Amino acid sequence: MAKNILVGLSGGPSVAINASLAGIIRGFNETDEFDNIYGCVNGIEGVLNRRIIDLSNYSDENSLKLLEQTPAMCLGSCRKKITEDDFPQIEQVFLSLEINTFFYIGGNDSMDTVLKLDNYFKSKFININVIGVPKTIDNDLPVTDHTPGYGSACKYLHHTMEEIIRDSEIYPVKNVVIVEIMGRDSGWLTIAAGLPNFLGGTHPDIVAIPEVAFDQEKFIEKINKLLTTQDLVVCVVSEGIREKSGSYVGMDTKSGAVDNFGHAYLSGVSKYLEHLAADRIGCKVRSIELNVLQRASSIIASKSDIDEAVLVGKHAVELAKNNKTGIMVVITRNDTTNGYEFQLTSTSVGNVANKRKDVPKYWYDLENQYVKIQIVNYLIPLTHGEMDTIRDNIGLPVHLKIDKTNIIEF
Amino acid sequence: MAKNILVGLSGGPSVAINASLAGIIRGFNETDEFDNIYGCVNGIEGVLNRRIIDLSNYSDENSLKLLEQTPAMCLGSCRKKITEDDFPQIEQVFLSLEINTFFYIGGNDSMDTVLKLDNYFKSKFININVIGVPKTIDNDLPVTDHTPGYGSACKYLHHTMEEIIRDSEIYPVKNVVIVEIMGRDSGWLTIAAGLPNFLGGTHPDIVAIPEVAFDQEKFIEKINKLLTTQDLVVCVVSEGIREKSGSYVGMDTKSGAVDNFGHAYLSGVSKYLEHLAADRIGCKVRSIELNVLQRASSIIASKSDIDEAVLVGKHAVELAKNNKTGIMVVITRNDTTNGYEFQLTSTSVGNVANKRKDVPKYWYDLENQYVKIQIVNYLIPLTHGEMDTIRDNIGLPVHLKIDKTNIIEF
Repeated sequence: MAKNILVGLSGGPSVAINASLAGIIRGFNETDEFDNIYGCVNGIEGVLNRRIIDLSNYSDENSLKLLEQTPAMCLGSCRKKITEDDFPQIEQVFLSLEINTFFYIGGNDSMDTVLKLDNYFKSKFININVIGVPKTIDNDLPVTDHTPGYGSACKYLHHTMEEIIRDSEIYPVKNVVIVEIMGRDSGWLTIAAGLPNFLGGTHPDIVAIPEVAFDQEKFIEKINKLLTTQDLVVCVVSEGIREKSGSYVGMDTKSGAVDNFGHAYLSGVSKYLEHLAADRIGCKVRSIELNVLQRASSIIASKSDIDEAVLVGKHAVELAKNNKTGIMVVITRNDTTNGYEFQLTSTSVGNVANKRKDVPKYWYDLENQYVKIQIVNYLIPLTHGEMDTIRDNIGLPVHLKIDKTNIIEF
Repeated sequence: MAKNILVGLSGGPSVAINASLAGIIRGFNETDEFDNIYGCVNGIEGVLNRRIIDLSNYSDENSLKLLEQTPAMCLGSCRKKITEDDFPQIEQVFLSLEINTFFYIGGNDSMDTVLKLDNYFKSKFININVIGVPKTIDNDLPVTDHTPGYGSACKYLHHTMEEIIRDSEIYPVKNVVIVEIMGRDSGWLTIAAGLPNFLGGTHPDIVAIPEVAFDQEKFIEKINKLLTTQDLVVCVVSEGIREKSGSYVGMDTKSGAVDNFGHAYLSGVSKYLEHLAADRIGCKVRSIELNVLQRASSIIASKSDIDEAVLVGKHAVELAKNNKTGIMVVITRNDTTNGYEFQLTSTSVGNVANKRKDVPKYWYDLENQYVKIQIVNYLIPLTHGEMDTIRDNIGLPVHLKIDKTNIIEF
C-alpha cells in the first residue's frame, strides 16, 4: 500500500501560504517516506468534490521558487465548516487515494476541520495523520508566537504608511488622514501601521484597535490638540473597533443611511470617522481603506516571513514522518538576548481550533491613544529581509499558476 | 550679479517628481553657468511667503540617489493659481535672490503659473527665464508623449491588478470585483489596469473610462453573461466615468444617501456599482478604491520612468543655459521599429497650460467594454525596468527628508 500526502489550503489569503505549500513539497522531495503528493482544489471542498491534482508536476526547483513568491492561494480556498455528514465521503476519498497524511494550511476555523477529522479517524481506528499548518495575516492563533503571512502584511503596512505620510504631508494645510486596516476582532495588523512613529518618523498620531474601547470624544479631542501645533494628523484604525458598549463604531450611521436600492450603506469605519472629523473639526479629512492589498501584496514581502513559512511546511512533513497527528506546527520565539531566534514545535490542535489570541492590553497606551514601543521588538524580526524576486521581462514578479482543471482519476 | 536657479513643485504627487528635481540639481552640478540653486517650500506659495531653502545641501550623489527614490514632493506642494496681484511680490523675491531661471515642476494648472510669470517678466523686460517641467500621474498634458510619473503609476496598477486577481480567484463562488482608479476626466491610469488581460492573464473583464459614456445596462449585461462561464469578473473603472447625459455615474445615489450628520454620502463610483451589481446580480461583489497608493507607491517604480524624469530635469537646465523661457520640456517618442526611443524637446507653455489630452477614443472597444491591444505598445516601454532601491536595515526603501524649516535669509 502506498503512503501518500494530501495538502489543502483554507480560509483567507496571505502572501506566505503558497510558501508553506512549497515547504511541504520540499519536505516530500527530501524523504523516501512518501510515494505521492496530491493537492485538493478549494480545500476540503475539493475532497468532497473529488477535485484532486498531482503536485509532483510542481516539485522542481523553479516551480517551488515561483510558488514561494506567489501571493494568495494557488490551489484555491474554501470557507467550509465540515459536519459529521461529510466524514464518510472524506474517508472514502482518503482511502482510495491511500492518504497517509493530510496537511491543512489555515487559521482558526481551518484548525476546526483538522480537529474534527483527527477525532473521526481516531474513533474509527483509521491510521491517517491530520496535521495543521498555521497561516493567517490576522496573527490571532493561540500558542504560536506568530503566524506565517503576518510578517509580510506588517511590512507592507509599515511601508505603505510611510508612503501615505509622504503623500499627505505635501500641502501646508490642516488635514487629517484616517487609514482603515483589516482586523474585525483583533488589532495585530493595525499595530504594525504604528511602527513609523517609533522608527524615525513623526506619524501616525493615533492607533485604535478592537481590544480597547474606542472613545469618539477623546479621538476628536486629541486630533484637535495636535492640529494646534502640526498640519497633518494620521490615524490608523482597525475595521472592528468598538464603543465601550461593545457595538461597532459608526454602526448606527452605517445602517442608517440607505441608497437608491434601499441598501444600508455599509461603508467602513474610516468613512464614518472621516465624516465625524470633518463635521467636528472642519478641516480636510481623507479616509483610506487598504482593502485586500494588505494581504495580497507580495512586492515587499518579508524574507524572514517567507523563509519561516517554508520551514513550517517542511517541519510539518517531519512530524508526519514521526506519525504525529491532531497537532498544529507552532513557532516558538526563544528567550534570548542575541536578537531573534525561533524554533518549530507543535501543539495539540484542540488548543488552537476556534480560539483567538488578542493583542495584549498592556501593549496599549490608553492616554496617548497609541501602541507602546514594545511592539517594535515583537514586530521587526518578523518583517526582516528582502526577497530575491524572479521577475518577467517587463519587471513584474512572476506568479506560478497551477492548472486546477488537471484533476486525477481515481 | 549672480545667476541663480530656483525650483518649485506644484500640484499632486507622483513617485517621479523628486527625480526631476534631482535631475535639475544634477544639471546644475554639471555646469559652471549658475551660482546657486534654491528651492521654494510649497511651490509658488513659498515665493510669496519667502520660504526658500538652499538645495546645495542636497546636491551630493548620496542625497540625489535618495531623492530619486523618494515618492511625493520633498519640497511640499501647493494648488495656488496666481493672479496679477501676486506678480510684484514674486518679482521682488526673484530679484533679491538674483534668480536667472525659475523651474516649475507640475501639471496643467502649474503650467498656467509658468505662462503667467513668463508673460509678466517679458512685459516688464525682466530677464528671468521661466521653464515648465512636466509631471503628473494623470498623463493628460498635451504635446508630450507622456509625463514623468505616469509610467510608475501604470506599473503599480498593472502589478496591483495581478495581485487583486490572485486574491479574488481563490473561492469557487460567483463573485464580482470592481476596482476604482484615479482619473476625474481622463482614463490614462485606468487603461493601464487593463494590461493583465493582454499579457497572459484572463482578467480584468471590463474597463470603463471617462472618455466613453458609461451604460449601466450594458455593464450588468456583460457581467451576467460572463458569470455563466466563469466564477470571477473583474471590472476597472475611472473615478470620473459619466452617463451619456454627462452626469457622473451614481451621482443621484451619492447625493441621495445621508448619514447621521446630514452629510451626503460621497462614496466613490465603485461603491455605487458594487450596490448596483449586488442588487441586479445577487452574487458577492467587492469594491476596491485604490486611493493615494497608486500615486505614492514607489516600491515597484518603473526604472525607465524615473530615469526619464531625471533626464527631463537635466534637459530643463540645458534649455536654461540657452536662455530659453516660456516653454515646457516635452518627451517625443520616435517613430521607429527598433523598440522604444525618445528625445527631449520643448513646446511653448501656452500649448499646454490649462489644456488636457484624453485617451484616444479609437483605443476603446465599445462593444467589448474594454481597451484595445494598442495600449500595450504605448504603455509597456514606460513601465520598464526595476530600480536598484537603497533600503534601511529593516528592508524598507529610504526616503530623503529635506529640512523645510532651514529657510534662507534675504
